[in-house]
Amino acid sequence: MKKGRLEAFSDGVIAIIITIMVLELHVPHGEHITDLVPLLPVLFSYVLSFVYVGIYWNNHHHMIYAAKTINGSILWANLHLLFWLSLIPFATAWMGENHFSRWPVILYGAVLIMTGMAYNILCGLLIRQAGEGSALAVALGRDWKGKLSVVIYLIAIALAFINPWISFSLYVLVAMIWFIPDRRIERNLSLAEEE
Amino acid sequence: MKKGRLEAFSDGVIAIIITIMVLELHVPHGEHITDLVPLLPVLFSYVLSFVYVGIYWNNHHHMIYAAKTINGSILWANLHLLFWLSLIPFATAWMGENHFSRWPVILYGAVLIMTGMAYNILCGLLIRQAGEGSALAVALGRDWKGKLSVVIYLIAIALAFINPWISFSLYVLVAMIWFIPDRRIERNLSLAEEE
Amino acid sequence: MKKGRLEAFSDGVIAIIITIMVLELHVPHGEHITDLVPLLPVLFSYVLSFVYVGIYWNNHHHMIYAAKTINGSILWANLHLLFWLSLIPFATAWMGENHFSRWPVILYGAVLIMTGMAYNILCGLLIRQAGEGSALAVALGRDWKGKLSVVIYLIAIALAFINPWISFSLYVLVAMIWFIPDRRIERNLSLAEEE
Amino acid sequence: MKKGRLEAFSDGVIAIIITIMVLELHVPHGEHITDLVPLLPVLFSYVLSFVYVGIYWNNHHHMIYAAKTINGSILWANLHLLFWLSLIPFATAWMGENHFSRWPVILYGAVLIMTGMAYNILCGLLIRQAGEGSALAVALGRDWKGKLSVVIYLIAIALAFINPWISFSLYVLVAMIWFIPDRRIERNLSLAEEE
Repeated sequence: MKKGRLEAFSDGVIAIIITIMVLELHVPHGEHITDLVPLLPVLFSYVLSFVYVGIYWNNHHHMIYAAKTINGSILWANLHLLFWLSLIPFATAWMGENHFSRWPVILYGAVLIMTGMAYNILCGLLIRQAGEGSALAVALGRDWKGKLSVVIYLIAIALAFINPWISFSLYVLVAMIWFIPDRRIERNLSLAEEE
Repeated sequence: MKKGRLEAFSDGVIAIIITIMVLELHVPHGEHITDLVPLLPVLFSYVLSFVYVGIYWNNHHHMIYAAKTINGSILWANLHLLFWLSLIPFATAWMGENHFSRWPVILYGAVLIMTGMAYNILCGLLIRQAGEGSALAVALGRDWKGKLSVVIYLIAIALAFINPWISFSLYVLVAMIWFIPDRRIERNLSLAEEE
Repeated sequence: MKKGRLEAFSDGVIAIIITIMVLELHVPHGEHITDLVPLLPVLFSYVLSFVYVGIYWNNHHHMIYAAKTINGSILWANLHLLFWLSLIPFATAWMGENHFSRWPVILYGAVLIMTGMAYNILCGLLIRQAGEGSALAVALGRDWKGKLSVVIYLIAIALAFINPWISFSLYVLVAMIWFIPDRRIERNLSLAEEE
Repeated sequence: MKKGRLEAFSDGVIAIIITIMVLELHVPHGEHITDLVPLLPVLFSYVLSFVYVGIYWNNHHHMIYAAKTINGSILWANLHLLFWLSLIPFATAWMGENHFSRWPVILYGAVLIMTGMAYNILCGLLIRQAGEGSALAVALGRDWKGKLSVVIYLIAIALAFINPWISFSLYVLVAMIWFIPDRRIERNLSLAEEE
């Protein structure tokens, strides 16, 4: 089974998800620069989610690129990941429009956890399909980032009951951990390909 | 005639269909977790439709992958399938917002029947194009699932006049029949390719 | 310059155009089957436009497939065609929501004329690029359909001042002229490829 | 790392951006031709933005086509460009609905500046990756257009305090500078490929 269409379909869905979030930036009725001020929290949550969806697209790109073959379970694990990603625009809008108040921030964290777990499941199935000693398994095997992220999200949700801004900062922290490129993994993949 | 663009266009349309459904999850005005409760039926119908559209994408993927060539009739049969798929977001939203009441549930079933029949037409044209003894014909030939689904949809519509929740359960049942991978067909396709 | 991305981008835009039209089918507030009745004109205009956009996608598919190379002018002629296609959802919605009254029907015809002319321009540039004796020029050269369509659209617009339903019937007529596959052209293309 | 998915994802996002702008052309309630008049400014700003996004797609097409390989930084520079492009529909709608009044026109210019700078960053990273003497570096190296555009945008923003229509005219001017194909660059690329 070829992976071309899985990539194309995932690209399509992720492209739509990342773009429809901007529709929540409702055009203000007034025409003065101050009319944009109430939109700032919506813009901030849009930027955060844009970075998150961008990170997922980047990693998805690497992960599927390294995979040789896919099967029916992988197709569904991929759809499962896309499902949780598709809820990010909703969680983003609710969080932005309510100025990062408690429950929206918790929901956002919960969606991030589910997305992260869906990503880990897809990752595991791809490794099983490729085999233990494969380049993919070596490259993705020590996935400390995936596990650490879920732990930080859980802490963020708990701390939202004290102050949701702490949670928001933790979401930004996780995005930064992923955003800073993991040179080691990229090198591993390159090495594995050269062999 | 090459099938690459038919795949790309279908992927695009299906990706949009599966993603715009989430736009019906209107962001609530309140900021408490209880403000999400009225959205639960919309979320349930979204999940069901996400699975259905995912199943169609999966099967479309397999079917077109197995096809060697396409022609003008197949292009239109494919657009016909996409047309009925494009009505699923509407039926989903109406069903979710009316908490699975009678007529929305019936309309949802009617759209599923039309989509299923459009799928069967496309399937038949692909088999005719490939020839009777082809790998595609062998793999898709005994399409008991397609026929059974339409029968169950019809029963579901009839039973909606007694209780729409029975119909909803039957829709879930059909989704499960398709969701559980049909190992036999996948194996047939693999065998046919190896020959 | 390779044509792959022109195809991919056009597929993306056309897929979005054909799908966002369905968003004009606003979910009714009531839950009875009779609440769907006011949506019927919107559905009719959606079906007509779905067929039109489908025809354009089909022909675009054939035309670009037959082209060997593209240049900057062709890229822009293609964007010009996509621009007019992008106005079809607007014209469709206005026509459907106003139950096929005069001015919306005229606007719909005007958008069809502009789209048709943009298509003819793209067609001409592709033929000039391919050369006079090329397979593409032979296949597309006697484009009586393109010219006939524009004439019928003009008549339809004029007759809208008498009765918009005559115009609507003429739009359906043009769609049928294109929908019925032109076996001769398909054969010409096949022959040209075999040479 | 292959560039196919970067192209596919960018095509998807740009296709969605260029198409969702048309959703701001809200269908008028009235059915007379005069009901379209208030939409004209929205249509004008849509046309301008359609041309701008088309220019970016065209240039993106050329630039990535000329690139041999991509890396992690390029993926993120590309997402950064897509982020600013994704704000164009918002700025377009605000400008159109407020009939090109001062602040919306300034915001539009600011988004154009950020988009232009994001484009220049991506351009610089691609050149660094390809190497100084590469065909890409030769073709893109003397990027006077990119720098000139940013200067004109800055002037346009300043002049918006006198009359926003001057700014609008300058935006049209920049679009025209880019729209008129730069034959020299296209020739350079062709020459470089022939070598």
